[in-house]
Amino acid sequence: MATIIPFRRDHAPSLDPMIKLVAADMNQVNSVILERMQSDVPLIPELAGHLIAGRGKRMRPMLTLACAHLLDYGGARHHKLAACVEFIHTATLLHDDVVDGSNLRRGRRTANLIWGNAASVLVGDFLFSRSFELMVEDGSLRVLKILSGASSIIAQGEVDQLTAQRRIETGEAHYLRIIDAKTAALFAAACRIAAVVAERDAKTEEALDSYGRNLGIAFQLVDDAIDYASDDATMGKDAGDDFRDGKITLPVILAYARGSDADRKFWRDAIEIGKNDDDQLAHATRLLRDSGALADTLARARHYGQLAIDALAGIGGGTARAALVEAVEFAVARTF
Amino acid sequence: MATIIPFRRDHAPSLDPMIKLVAADMNQVNSVILERMQSDVPLIPELAGHLIAGRGKRMRPMLTLACAHLLDYGGARHHKLAACVEFIHTATLLHDDVVDGSNLRRGRRTANLIWGNAASVLVGDFLFSRSFELMVEDGSLRVLKILSGASSIIAQGEVDQLTAQRRIETGEAHYLRIIDAKTAALFAAACRIAAVVAERDAKTEEALDSYGRNLGIAFQLVDDAIDYASDDATMGKDAGDDFRDGKITLPVILAYARGSDADRKFWRDAIEIGKNDDDQLAHATRLLRDSGALADTLARARHYGQLAIDALAGIGGGTARAALVEAVEFAVARTF
Repeated sequence: MATIIPFRRDHAPSLDPMIKLVAADMNQVNSVILERMQSDVPLIPELAGHLIAGRGKRMRPMLTLACAHLLDYGGARHHKLAACVEFIHTATLLHDDVVDGSNLRRGRRTANLIWGNAASVLVGDFLFSRSFELMVEDGSLRVLKILSGASSIIAQGEVDQLTAQRRIETGEAHYLRIIDAKTAALFAAACRIAAVVAERDAKTEEALDSYGRNLGIAFQLVDDAIDYASDDATMGKDAGDDFRDGKITLPVILAYARGSDADRKFWRDAIEIGKNDDDQLAHATRLLRDSGALADTLARARHYGQLAIDALAGIGGGTARAALVEAVEFAVARTF
Repeated sequence: MATIIPFRRDHAPSLDPMIKLVAADMNQVNSVILERMQSDVPLIPELAGHLIAGRGKRMRPMLTLACAHLLDYGGARHHKLAACVEFIHTATLLHDDVVDGSNLRRGRRTANLIWGNAASVLVGDFLFSRSFELMVEDGSLRVLKILSGASSIIAQGEVDQLTAQRRIETGEAHYLRIIDAKTAALFAAACRIAAVVAERDAKTEEALDSYGRNLGIAFQLVDDAIDYASDDATMGKDAGDDFRDGKITLPVILAYARGSDADRKFWRDAIEIGKNDDDQLAHATRLLRDSGALADTLARARHYGQLAIDALAGIGGGTARAALVEAVEFAVARTF
């Protein structure tokens, strides 16, 4: 049984308030990104630009900017640091697509498909290094600690996920550790650094970390559900990719746990042996719906979304807070 | 005509004096490395340990330690920072082997061959992140600037090399820029940070940077020659790898520049089209010898070696200086 937490609003939740809130700052961030992805080696801006100029929502840098707004930060340090966050994210996307052998990202062909795996690995390394150069220019050891720690956690989460791949026995708790590391850690850090530049206390840092972390988990869980419940055009990447990659995600974990012996054999064959053609994907999607696994993955997402919203209690207010709350509602209500 | 700079010594130059000089410190560095390559994700220490516990010379961290000796540094900060340098180096090796599809490194099967490309990419990312975490613990923004700058330069050099691959028209000047970035920048940074922890002036920093940079270039040029002039057992990696990968190195650049029309056609076919079977490798090696390209690559290496030695003029003395000088002589005289 899914627990439905109703959000009260007279229109569908949207990212627009947050986009509007940070629009002027985001122009500055985009300038930093464009300027600092340059290199005398032409392939670097060419490849990086393909992904960076693509249809990304800039979700993570937007969070840094919105959290800075929430705290009435009046300086400009967050522009460079938001660019750092986006560079780290872009580097992980480049490496992820190599690791997964993906062909489509944000509705466009992936960089590894166009320029090859080698170029994607090396340009990812460049963006990652460049991100640290930007942090050093900012000069805050506290920010460096937060973002280097997050980077290390992300890499460990990615390896953990790789290890869990094709292992149907991976449980929900283990899976939550994986997404906490590979996805939520950067959301948390993106929000937390806003408290550092605004020179707020540890309690505020913790609250923004918690907001970002829970939003990140919710975001990932919805992504996991969308992978089984969308079409390519809507989601901008290949639907069923997780299934074909033998990737363990929460929908599969729930359906496997709840399944009959025959269902469990189907999931083992699909995930561990790789019986994952289009018919098997269709069957998987049916099982995910019939078992309530998809609906309950979304219910879990709403649970984390509510934690994110409650983490903001007592911090700031006004349009910034409303935008941050609506961003959560949007994340858990994305249509598919 | 190769200019031979004779080194006067009654025995073959060796790394032993430097190894002996830093032995106690290196035990500390190895402890840091072993402790900080751990993770709750078992594949990380397993894969990282394969390469780190391998037969590497620990050349770069050894340089940090030896330079600290040269400056009579009495603290312990350089242990952690030398581990950073080795982590950055190990991360680039893991990614290099993926990029090149290498099967053999330091006489052992490569990590990408054993655990796959995905794991090598992600564990490389972990080591790179962990390196920055260690730097942040050390707390010097100056060191962070030097090593993040070096990392960014390395990545750009790697992409530049990838772009030059299979391009026979790459000239010597361009090639020198590539190896200055992909190899020498980390040698330079490894030496330079010793001056930072020892709190010496900019002139000393520059001198150690120059020592490391020129040693790095010499080191790379000798490696390039060895790739054509050794056997697998001696060099611990596959001889002829550069040739088969269509990699442009100085021996090829010189042989192509000096070759007859037939020779140049041979090189174009080999490097650009990939006519690089064993017979063609044997022919390439003959051309490299007959044109003096191998001998003159080594002469160039000795030139940079001499620059490295001269950079130490007026800095420190005693056994540390003698060990650093002999390390250069060893680098340019490695038997093959």
